[in-house]
Amino acid sequence: MLIPSKIIAILTDFGISDIYVGVIKGVILNIAPDTNIIDITHEIQPQNIKQAAFLLKDSYTYFPEGTIFLAVVDPGVGSNRKPIAVRTEKYYFIGPDNGVLSFVLEEAKEIDAVKLNNPKYLLDKVCNTFHGRDIFAPAAAHLAAGVPFNDLGSSAASGSLNRFGFIKYYDIKDNLIAGEVVHIDRFGNIISSIDKDFFDYYCKGNDVVTYINSNEIDGIMQTFSNAAQGDLLVYFGSGSHIEIAARNDNAARILGAKIGDRIYIKVVS
Amino acid sequence: MLIPSKIIAILTDFGISDIYVGVIKGVILNIAPDTNIIDITHEIQPQNIKQAAFLLKDSYTYFPEGTIFLAVVDPGVGSNRKPIAVRTEKYYFIGPDNGVLSFVLEEAKEIDAVKLNNPKYLLDKVCNTFHGRDIFAPAAAHLAAGVPFNDLGSSAASGSLNRFGFIKYYDIKDNLIAGEVVHIDRFGNIISSIDKDFFDYYCKGNDVVTYINSNEIDGIMQTFSNAAQGDLLVYFGSGSHIEIAARNDNAARILGAKIGDRIYIKVVS
Amino acid sequence: MLIPSKIIAILTDFGISDIYVGVIKGVILNIAPDTNIIDITHEIQPQNIKQAAFLLKDSYTYFPEGTIFLAVVDPGVGSNRKPIAVRTEKYYFIGPDNGVLSFVLEEAKEIDAVKLNNPKYLLDKVCNTFHGRDIFAPAAAHLAAGVPFNDLGSSAASGSLNRFGFIKYYDIKDNLIAGEVVHIDRFGNIISSIDKDFFDYYCKGNDVVTYINSNEIDGIMQTFSNAAQGDLLVYFGSGSHIEIAARNDNAARILGAKIGDRIYIKVVS
Repeated sequence: MLIPSKIIAILTDFGISDIYVGVIKGVILNIAPDTNIIDITHEIQPQNIKQAAFLLKDSYTYFPEGTIFLAVVDPGVGSNRKPIAVRTEKYYFIGPDNGVLSFVLEEAKEIDAVKLNNPKYLLDKVCNTFHGRDIFAPAAAHLAAGVPFNDLGSSAASGSLNRFGFIKYYDIKDNLIAGEVVHIDRFGNIISSIDKDFFDYYCKGNDVVTYINSNEIDGIMQTFSNAAQGDLLVYFGSGSHIEIAARNDNAARILGAKIGDRIYIKVVS
Repeated sequence: MLIPSKIIAILTDFGISDIYVGVIKGVILNIAPDTNIIDITHEIQPQNIKQAAFLLKDSYTYFPEGTIFLAVVDPGVGSNRKPIAVRTEKYYFIGPDNGVLSFVLEEAKEIDAVKLNNPKYLLDKVCNTFHGRDIFAPAAAHLAAGVPFNDLGSSAASGSLNRFGFIKYYDIKDNLIAGEVVHIDRFGNIISSIDKDFFDYYCKGNDVVTYINSNEIDGIMQTFSNAAQGDLLVYFGSGSHIEIAARNDNAARILGAKIGDRIYIKVVS
Repeated sequence: MLIPSKIIAILTDFGISDIYVGVIKGVILNIAPDTNIIDITHEIQPQNIKQAAFLLKDSYTYFPEGTIFLAVVDPGVGSNRKPIAVRTEKYYFIGPDNGVLSFVLEEAKEIDAVKLNNPKYLLDKVCNTFHGRDIFAPAAAHLAAGVPFNDLGSSAASGSLNRFGFIKYYDIKDNLIAGEVVHIDRFGNIISSIDKDFFDYYCKGNDVVTYINSNEIDGIMQTFSNAAQGDLLVYFGSGSHIEIAARNDNAARILGAKIGDRIYIKVVS
């Protein structure tokens, strides 16, 4: 039986120039004063559920067992999308049932889910535009404070939860691995949906050329310093995905790349 | 007698690209090592005391009793404006006496105030340009560490503290509720000075039309998803103020709105 | 013998729109669950080691004895630059040996250093592009959890560590103190490499005129409010360096100043 830790890790699109995140922390500490609240990031593009799902996937496994993740990117707030809590074999996740937990659900071996509909564990007054404060934060805090998972609300079938995937396929005719840009980081590094396992399976150790926005880049490198100053390089990033960088420069700016752009890798056999 | 909690919540205009906030936290932990320091926001517009006062008002009530708030937006640092600490029936507040605590003072039932002039609880050397580090942070930390409130300095009459209000009035001739934009959030949602109680008192359940920057918007909606994609809507925000949003879009950009702009609500009787 | 505190203070160029900082915190809490993790700033300009070194210098002395600083600005990640830990008489520092600890090393009375090459205290798999997660964070966390400093890896001679300085000299012919812009803060205040001791030594209490980008500014002021609204002023900042501000305005924008620009102070004898 998984014991919740005192750690609540938060990922949202609330930004940091408003009070939204601060208020969520106030609500949590009001219910569970000993909680250690950690920010993953609050700079998800407004309402970009796919980016949030990807960044949650690449971060949650580094946290201690029992960590409670609060993932609030919620364009449908106040509509009929369900607020949920999910328990896997190692972690807890709380957020809207809109796909933000897609990869968590994909990777989990065990999944229990509840709808957050027990009024005892919501704020007294629930506002239609800020469930992060009124529903999700209280649920996370009550879990941290020892409320049993199943008391948070009625059970939800794990198969009924919303999920999506990223574009990632192999074109056998052209011997081409295809993917999409899922995130661009602060340094302008371009992160794709193509992970190492998928790449290795189709590439089989052959040479490759990567194409993005009418540019081509030869080969795969180990790290930034293997490229010349300002040169583009393709490499496996820290999350085991194909990434494109420019050494000490900004690849996304150089290539005009943005989230959703296609990436193709030609396998030269 | 209100017992200070181990929580210090900070709201400033220091931003996060400098070391100012980090240094304040270092100073606090040096004096009170067990403190749990929470960021409300540091992205108040530089020197915008009114915005800070508003965002403090909308956040502080969600924190646990005894929380110590450090509110440092301080264009007059080093001049003769007073550094103060305020105790209400439920919270502690520390900051410059320049109006940043206006709404706290308005809402409090009990107010005790002291000037932060006990040299024992300042840093050894007080710099003219960073009282956040040298005066305010030490005061907050000493409170958290158990120093009695009245030891922080000499008593100040609560009536003498600086306050201001926002524009908010009813025009009986035109049957018009008037207010101003007090904040624009990350999503481009426009938050006004018109709160629900004020609105309900004059609107009396009648239909309304909202005017801002030569645009008009019909009615009041419950939440974002009640509007069509990209459409403007007027609603009561999570802080119980009239707000204007555009569904999955940026209302402030669409309307060219900025802090200080006027908002009028015509009551259609 | 210096006992490590439970505080880890982090300064990086990772920004806050990615998961890098969140993941580092997850790694730390996985190893040392009771750690209090404090952000100094993550908004160092990408790969700007000099700016990082300066901001670390101006912040670390405010933290409690035993604080463990994690300073990760690391353009050479994955190359042959050494990952190191440094112990001074009062603090611990962890980061790449690329100059980011220059001023810490300059100011320390005692210096012990180790290379972080004990595989026991790295993550199981070390990625070539994210030593912050795989080498530096685990080292900091293991220190906080009680692992002896010398167990982190093999000893490194303190004299072998990389250091650099900022431009700062006195031109005897023209009676001119020269320096460079080392940081521009959120308010547009321009921070120079000229510190108060250096200034006092050559200025000897005489009048001065400051030159930057073809502008000149008379005298030294005590604080912002001594200048008229919008006027430029030269003063000693909170880190005891010569700074240039504009009262309630943005001096860097007015002067077109950027990091690396030269500043000259003419001593009028």
